[in-house]
Amino acid sequence: MENHVVVLGCGFGGLFAAQALNGAPVRVTVIDRANHHLFQPLLYQVATAGLSAPAIAAPIRQILEAQKNVTVLMAEVQTIDTARKAVVLDGGEEVTYDFLIVATGATHSYFGHPEWERDAPGLKTLEDAFEIRRRILLAYEHAERERDPQKRAAWLTFLVIGAGPTGVEMAGTLAEISRHTLRGEFRNFDSSQARVILVEGSASVLSTYPPDLSAKARDQLERLGVTVRTESRVTGIDAEGILIGQERIAAKTVIWAAGVAASPLGKSLGVELDRAGRVPVGPELSIAAHPEVFVIGDLAAATSDGKPVPGISPAAKQMGRYAAKRILHRLRGSTDAGSTNTFPPFQYKDYGQLATIGRNAAVAIIGKLRFSGYLAWLVWLFAHIYFLIGFRNRIVVLFDWALAYWSFERNARIVVGNKDSRFHFKSPS
Amino acid sequence: MENHVVVLGCGFGGLFAAQALNGAPVRVTVIDRANHHLFQPLLYQVATAGLSAPAIAAPIRQILEAQKNVTVLMAEVQTIDTARKAVVLDGGEEVTYDFLIVATGATHSYFGHPEWERDAPGLKTLEDAFEIRRRILLAYEHAERERDPQKRAAWLTFLVIGAGPTGVEMAGTLAEISRHTLRGEFRNFDSSQARVILVEGSASVLSTYPPDLSAKARDQLERLGVTVRTESRVTGIDAEGILIGQERIAAKTVIWAAGVAASPLGKSLGVELDRAGRVPVGPELSIAAHPEVFVIGDLAAATSDGKPVPGISPAAKQMGRYAAKRILHRLRGSTDAGSTNTFPPFQYKDYGQLATIGRNAAVAIIGKLRFSGYLAWLVWLFAHIYFLIGFRNRIVVLFDWALAYWSFERNARIVVGNKDSRFHFKSPS
Repeated sequence: MENHVVVLGCGFGGLFAAQALNGAPVRVTVIDRANHHLFQPLLYQVATAGLSAPAIAAPIRQILEAQKNVTVLMAEVQTIDTARKAVVLDGGEEVTYDFLIVATGATHSYFGHPEWERDAPGLKTLEDAFEIRRRILLAYEHAERERDPQKRAAWLTFLVIGAGPTGVEMAGTLAEISRHTLRGEFRNFDSSQARVILVEGSASVLSTYPPDLSAKARDQLERLGVTVRTESRVTGIDAEGILIGQERIAAKTVIWAAGVAASPLGKSLGVELDRAGRVPVGPELSIAAHPEVFVIGDLAAATSDGKPVPGISPAAKQMGRYAAKRILHRLRGSTDAGSTNTFPPFQYKDYGQLATIGRNAAVAIIGKLRFSGYLAWLVWLFAHIYFLIGFRNRIVVLFDWALAYWSFERNARIVVGNKDSRFHFKSPS
Repeated sequence: MENHVVVLGCGFGGLFAAQALNGAPVRVTVIDRANHHLFQPLLYQVATAGLSAPAIAAPIRQILEAQKNVTVLMAEVQTIDTARKAVVLDGGEEVTYDFLIVATGATHSYFGHPEWERDAPGLKTLEDAFEIRRRILLAYEHAERERDPQKRAAWLTFLVIGAGPTGVEMAGTLAEISRHTLRGEFRNFDSSQARVILVEGSASVLSTYPPDLSAKARDQLERLGVTVRTESRVTGIDAEGILIGQERIAAKTVIWAAGVAASPLGKSLGVELDRAGRVPVGPELSIAAHPEVFVIGDLAAATSDGKPVPGISPAAKQMGRYAAKRILHRLRGSTDAGSTNTFPPFQYKDYGQLATIGRNAAVAIIGKLRFSGYLAWLVWLFAHIYFLIGFRNRIVVLFDWALAYWSFERNARIVVGNKDSRFHFKSPS
């Protein structure tokens, strides 16, 4: 009987692990609660109506169709029982494993204020993206109907909290929407009156970048029309806006891009988690007590050459490939199950960092090169099209972007579902 | 002060009315509860994962942006007060009019069984299409997890109720999905085992077509793998399947394509409605007591040359254009407000009928020509691309269809939202 490798989560880490097991003498089961793999770096484009959901997502079973040793199950994992080597699914079924790769990623963290989520949704899944798209587009619709200038101003104020890569690209795109996309479409106000405010607790935007690039990013944001407020800690969020210390900013649309917490599944592994809820793993990416359990991607607290491995997609892909190879190496019997001596430890290869800000605006570090502006933006653009899964999606995204670039249009300005009670639109009877 | 024309609903009727008022010396307000105009003839493609929502929908205010006399409001209309010439919106605001064009269309009718809707959703809006897409794709996901053969068979049985154009195209596409699209993607069953059953109360499919074409449509459906059951009246629907008389068919996915009822807004016009809830209109498409109130599209019970005007999109477009011209004619003062003598009555021009069944399969009547099969399918295809709104959408749909035709793939197999309690997938915490 062949060994059974179970992969939990089919983001970049899980997908690359499953693909690295192609043709290997193991049975593989991939379990994800969604039916699709999501190209998360472009999720903000779905949230800002630039792309449709199918352009950046592909059915997991379609991607892995040709890989005959893989079974895909769409299910939520309830718990992991490391003692019995089994995972329990939402329907109560158990799936036993010989090797387990846990790659369930991260979710939003509201720093002890879960009540903020209702009024400040974060961006991790397609559901999140649709909800944010809905709020942005409906805010302008409300502004068109609103006669009270103060209330209208609140509908036309967009707050993004957290100036990491997601916050920066959201803010830049929101400014472009107000200044260009929607221009001329409203009769009761000028859409370029809309304010986009990026709120950051620390001293700079994109704080993981070197100070010069970080300053350039801020410049580019301000040129696009974004108000950047650094060293501003949010102390309250409700349906009417936010508090920064004692100062109140009235805004109907608030987007959370500040905190990330590891997937709660880490808790069921029986190891002590780090402050962000991540699972500490050894040099072979497995947990100390269970060398057959690997944790990869954003859920893992891994190190490479003594430095923490960053929570970005290239790292997840590299960890996925490594875990798969590690398993196959063990199965070939060239080493004992617990030993790591004869197989090199995981080593993260840093290809650089890329962050987009908006039209013609980005910052990039590639090797020793640092650049910003139009060139960085072009690199960002082609890198993202290159890494997109599937030929069709590449063509569609390239076409949509080309058209959007020249027309300043956004092609997915469709709102589906009006169920939020914050809006008085009724759903169809 | 210019006259104010208010258009309720921006389907084909409302949109063509608004566009026919371009440049006219009137103010126009278009009110719709969605932010988009929907190309409804292709909605079944969104429901069956062939197209993304933005491919067949465009923001109303974007379509009408250049028409400077038009204001677009996204709002639900609560009621129409014909005495005070005002419509009341969901927020309580009133919008007064000099002329009103009511074009709010139709919704599903369950023939006195509203409780069936939960287990047999119909297809009118993008929300409906996403819900049906979700049920279809998740049914296969459940089948992959289900070990009990009988329960699995229920997940793999797809019932479509009603063999009009929508039911026929849904059934044909569902058969193609099972036989081609999903083939080879599941490990625990063969997707071509899935049964697609089209249930119709009358004696034939596409009963508005001549008997020979109707018979050909049935042939083509059966060749695609659809089981056609005519003269089968549904007497019960629940979460486990349907009843036809005393016979029970177990099925987890049931789609309703049988009945249509006019929009409930017709009731507030104070006129006696016909059996289907439609508003009887005179030869100038206005209601008897209020010549300034026009009713067009699926909500209107109109006649042309003594015959009822059919509830199809070309008729709605023609009525929309006619109502706009009629208003402008009255404003030019060439006739009294109530008279219809000097302006010709509405005349429906019948360009024919087209219904698609599936790959290479369709039936068509154009003038005196009748044809079916590949040629009819090509005509259907190019007609639909031609009539799609917007250059981008035409390209995207053409590209998606070309790729889908050669690959047998469907490009929008993405499920968003797992909130239905019929499924035990949990939503993210």
